[in-house]
Amino acid sequence: MAKVSGRLFILSAPSGTGKTSLTKSLIRKNINLSLSISYTSRLMRSSEVEGHDYFFVERNIFEQMLEDGELVESAEIYGNLYGTSRKWINEAINSGKDILLEIDGQGARQVREIFPDVVSIFVLPPSLEVLENRLKDRNQDSKEVIVKRMAAAKEEISHVSEYDYVIINDNMDMALRDLVSVVQSERLRAPAQLTRYHDLVTQLG
Amino acid sequence: MAKVSGRLFILSAPSGTGKTSLTKSLIRKNINLSLSISYTSRLMRSSEVEGHDYFFVERNIFEQMLEDGELVESAEIYGNLYGTSRKWINEAINSGKDILLEIDGQGARQVREIFPDVVSIFVLPPSLEVLENRLKDRNQDSKEVIVKRMAAAKEEISHVSEYDYVIINDNMDMALRDLVSVVQSERLRAPAQLTRYHDLVTQLG
Repeated sequence: MAKVSGRLFILSAPSGTGKTSLTKSLIRKNINLSLSISYTSRLMRSSEVEGHDYFFVERNIFEQMLEDGELVESAEIYGNLYGTSRKWINEAINSGKDILLEIDGQGARQVREIFPDVVSIFVLPPSLEVLENRLKDRNQDSKEVIVKRMAAAKEEISHVSEYDYVIINDNMDMALRDLVSVVQSERLRAPAQLTRYHDLVTQLG
Repeated sequence: MAKVSGRLFILSAPSGTGKTSLTKSLIRKNINLSLSISYTSRLMRSSEVEGHDYFFVERNIFEQMLEDGELVESAEIYGNLYGTSRKWINEAINSGKDILLEIDGQGARQVREIFPDVVSIFVLPPSLEVLENRLKDRNQDSKEVIVKRMAAAKEEISHVSEYDYVIINDNMDMALRDLVSVVQSERLRAPAQLTRYHDLVTQLG
């Protein structure tokens, strides 16, 4: 089998859709898909490991990376900067690894411009009520904060048609099975398979 | 959930690739995918059922259908005519059924012209040796006939790059899992999902 470049996948979902659990379960499936490791300007927590959870850098270093165009997407969340390194992604996919980016709609748009072949997946909650209840359940947030989160979720969802695939997370096992199907089937696309099995096709054809 | 038109899938594979077993197993998976029922001019065998195995018609009726452009693809095999009815396909997909066509590369090209959204899958044997052995094993054919079958298989395989997906049938369970992934993931494509979940997206977005 000839070596084939890795694929880049984007998973986006508004908060309250179960994105983090889904991503963790997907990675744990061991289907040869790795989560992208982002750069961040925030301080490392005691539970975190450099180069595993994030690459931790000083804010001025992060800003220099931004200025140098080294980041394919970035965002500021609660005053901290987060971003994905172009070099890291290129090295990972050139080495044949499939990489999953867990980013929002704005990040997804930035990545699509640089990697047009990226496969993007949007996860929707099964209903507005479920989304609202999930946001309420997991937070001690005030009513105002929940209203804000709902508005942010709706903003995210308004970009759903920009994605390649849409998965409804009603039942976690079903949503996970759907995610695995997308990853597996993208690997079966003719151009990738014909590179992977070049010798076989030459022998047979 | 709003009703979505069914999808049309093509499965092509040279003889000796395990196509018939794969197709049967795929249909038996009960993933809401039905095998297309072809028209044929050949005589019905005692084991066959009209409208289940084939629609059996007189040769002159078949030729009239051909002339009237009622068939989206057709082929003559050992003197008998086989073909797929455009009306049958349209009715099936309009009723929301996903349909699998088991046809060769020439048929696939004809169908692509009429249904550009068709999803086409090509199944390859894992090696030339396996293909040759499978052709030898299942036949009492003379060496000459096997040579002819091999040449026909190679001709078929030379069109592999015209397909959307390529699956290697080395292990039947793996190949079946790959086929299911393709069918499932095609159902998760954004346009279909946004039609299916139109009310949800409107509610959320």
